[in-house]
Amino acid sequence: MTGISTISIDAMGGDIGPQAVVEGIGYALKRWPDRKANYLLHGDEAHLQPLLELHPAVAAVSEIRHTPTSVTMTAKPSEAVRRARGSSMWNAIQCVKSGEASAIVSSGNTGALMAISKVILRMKKGVHRPAISANWPTPTGHTVVLDVGANISCGATQLVEFAIMGEAYHQACFGDGDPKVGLLNVGQEELKGNDTVREADSLIRNANLDMNYIGFIEGNDISAGHIDVVVTDGFTGNIALKAAEGTAKLVAGFVRDALTSSLLAKLAAGLLSLGALDRLRRRMDPRHMNGGVLLGLKGIVVKSHGGSDGEGFASALGLSLLLSKSNFMQAIRNNLDKFASAHDQDNNAQS
Amino acid sequence: MTGISTISIDAMGGDIGPQAVVEGIGYALKRWPDRKANYLLHGDEAHLQPLLELHPAVAAVSEIRHTPTSVTMTAKPSEAVRRARGSSMWNAIQCVKSGEASAIVSSGNTGALMAISKVILRMKKGVHRPAISANWPTPTGHTVVLDVGANISCGATQLVEFAIMGEAYHQACFGDGDPKVGLLNVGQEELKGNDTVREADSLIRNANLDMNYIGFIEGNDISAGHIDVVVTDGFTGNIALKAAEGTAKLVAGFVRDALTSSLLAKLAAGLLSLGALDRLRRRMDPRHMNGGVLLGLKGIVVKSHGGSDGEGFASALGLSLLLSKSNFMQAIRNNLDKFASAHDQDNNAQS
Repeated sequence: MTGISTISIDAMGGDIGPQAVVEGIGYALKRWPDRKANYLLHGDEAHLQPLLELHPAVAAVSEIRHTPTSVTMTAKPSEAVRRARGSSMWNAIQCVKSGEASAIVSSGNTGALMAISKVILRMKKGVHRPAISANWPTPTGHTVVLDVGANISCGATQLVEFAIMGEAYHQACFGDGDPKVGLLNVGQEELKGNDTVREADSLIRNANLDMNYIGFIEGNDISAGHIDVVVTDGFTGNIALKAAEGTAKLVAGFVRDALTSSLLAKLAAGLLSLGALDRLRRRMDPRHMNGGVLLGLKGIVVKSHGGSDGEGFASALGLSLLLSKSNFMQAIRNNLDKFASAHDQDNNAQS
Repeated sequence: MTGISTISIDAMGGDIGPQAVVEGIGYALKRWPDRKANYLLHGDEAHLQPLLELHPAVAAVSEIRHTPTSVTMTAKPSEAVRRARGSSMWNAIQCVKSGEASAIVSSGNTGALMAISKVILRMKKGVHRPAISANWPTPTGHTVVLDVGANISCGATQLVEFAIMGEAYHQACFGDGDPKVGLLNVGQEELKGNDTVREADSLIRNANLDMNYIGFIEGNDISAGHIDVVVTDGFTGNIALKAAEGTAKLVAGFVRDALTSSLLAKLAAGLLSLGALDRLRRRMDPRHMNGGVLLGLKGIVVKSHGGSDGEGFASALGLSLLLSKSNFMQAIRNNLDKFASAHDQDNNAQS
């Protein structure tokens, strides 16, 4: 688990493409000088070579793997799977399968990334479909939320899988030995949630998992800082995440208005910007939270936001480096096995 | 539609109870001197009389309707319906049924308020269950979001009812002739949402409603200001609303940290607080957005947040006064009839 990681990159993905990738590696080298890595850049050499010449420090740790094709941001996943063989995304994932790289990072088409990853890497035994995780800021750190969009409707067993994977992921990312896991629900008296979350709750409680499961939580708990892993279906998770992003943007706009509303306010903002405002900006910069992980695959796949610039891409790279050096794949495996065996016993007892 | 409204109040509801109610009327008198009203305060005279003596302006427009019982905040709705007859909540709703009041306002138990309102006021023809609306802030005004928690799982027809009711409600609250209505969904390529939202989308498009329906929207559109009415099921809506509340609180905390992090920052905050910061505080004060409406009933029922203080309760009162003077109940009726007739034709054509 020590030494130099190799990260495979779909260098043509995202709205900005190769430039964000090369600049992103540059930022990562500065931000995490201790996380040593080599990078395999899959994409068009004619694009990539001139960029590397501009960034010699990046060139020193990078190797171009030329391919002339890439998956477009709007391609349908089913189509991408059939036609993407040999594209930058396909080849980048293939390097994880072959063992040449420990993780793959892409800012490309999410649906295609999921579909191609499933075909090449395959799912872990006992996992139905990948879940996408997001790191959600709190006053003191981050909450891991999953699924944020991969699975529109989920059964109870899938939610349990998410809990298991999210716990191991939080441990790997944030070094927390015993993360608190909660199941997202509504809290009204009459309405204790739908059948699926109630069933998932009882499955987790009865599976004797090595998990600090604290039961149902509500939407306002996500960013409060007292929960570490939030489990929900991809429809709800995606909408909650985007609603929160919209709210953060709204409030940031209110603050900006307040700081530019008068000469006096501008003077105040000038004083603030000497220090505190910069820190505020950093804490609210979504680029620092960039990087979702496709959990449940037999390999580490990190999705960077399609609109990421170099700084954002660097965050996704940082995540891939962290996960490459952790044993979270094994931790997921252990708890999935435990759940599968508890589940089988349960089924046998009933039959 | 002119003259003086009569508002019926469950004066024992909420965590603070009668004090928030009496102070709330006081704030409402000052905030909206042109919205003339009388108030029927249902509750314990021994509690209410001394409070009115402290607030003569409130006493002048209020009448106590004594009852010794009230519904607790933790009672189960089904139980409340059986046992709540004669309680402050029951009697307050009854005054709308009898025509004595044009609206009822309560900070009490939401589930009980829904259940008792259904029993006393009954549902509008063509509406399955009440939906709860929330007014969500945007840079330029408010988006109406429904359902935010009354209906955990919704069929497509229910979502169409929400669209119809939300549109009329937005018109009544914000005087907008042609609000833009969107259906909340996820936007990933592969995942165009679940069957229910797709069916609701096609029902609305085919029903020939008098509605500015703009189709699917995503979570970040809610607070962006380009949509006026957001339609979703109560599970997703409740979680999105609370996730957004949590995020607003988080960001407010970051701003507070920034403004108190150093002497210089405190000086800056001092300058700001002379004007701009106060406005910022007001824009982010959830008390100014307090008041959800239980839509779909044959009567106006406004739910005030359980933790409301006087200022918060005043906002819920302001909403009840606005709705009392509008024709939104009729507007809902008209579009429901149109939808029912389109739906019938559709069913006949298929059979």
